[in-house]
Amino acid sequence: MDDKINLADKLAQLDDAYDPRIVGYLNDYKLEVVKTRGEFVWHKHDDTDDFFLVLSGHLTIQLRDRDVELGPGELFVVPKGVEHCPRADLEAHVLLIEPKGTVNTGDAPPGELTREERGV
Amino acid sequence: MDDKINLADKLAQLDDAYDPRIVGYLNDYKLEVVKTRGEFVWHKHDDTDDFFLVLSGHLTIQLRDRDVELGPGELFVVPKGVEHCPRADLEAHVLLIEPKGTVNTGDAPPGELTREERGV
Repeated sequence: MDDKINLADKLAQLDDAYDPRIVGYLNDYKLEVVKTRGEFVWHKHDDTDDFFLVLSGHLTIQLRDRDVELGPGELFVVPKGVEHCPRADLEAHVLLIEPKGTVNTGDAPPGELTREERGV
Repeated sequence: MDDKINLADKLAQLDDAYDPRIVGYLNDYKLEVVKTRGEFVWHKHDDTDDFFLVLSGHLTIQLRDRDVELGPGELFVVPKGVEHCPRADLEAHVLLIEPKGTVNTGDAPPGELTREERGV
């Protein structure tokens, strides 16, 4: 049986920004940690909501009509089909939850920020 | 569109132990906060894994063969069908994620700790 997951320990093993790593699963959902620095890419997920929980630092989730500002202990669920673009002027550490198989860049053209699913 | 969720603010509105309150949704999953004090009840969920993330304090998830000790920033997913019994000698604040309709006391006989789904 899998053991507990210390999120800070997992994050300490990451270097690159916007390189999410799977730390566990909840049924058919992947639990991922990611370091965010700078701006990601505008995208949406047509088939799923998108869960963000900030663990440390500050993350802005840009929506087309407003910005959602998240600090530690704050979460936001981007509804399915809603365009968004995360941005972190300073590094933030984030827990992401999405169904397995969800592409991190959603419907955006595959590019340098598109990542394969992998563990830490 | 729902706004961001500050977990500490939501928890500050709760009094009772083991009275989980829905703060949001991720597709067909409910996101809940709960204060844990003392021992819960042994139970299992035959149809779903069970997600626990400790936000503050310390939570012991008792399994039949061992205890899983969680501090802030540590999460554990109890696999479906595995008996467990949370225990907190001091109060802990916890984020729970389960499919909508999951009964908090699982397969245990409905009792004083069984709660209806409701928001904070």
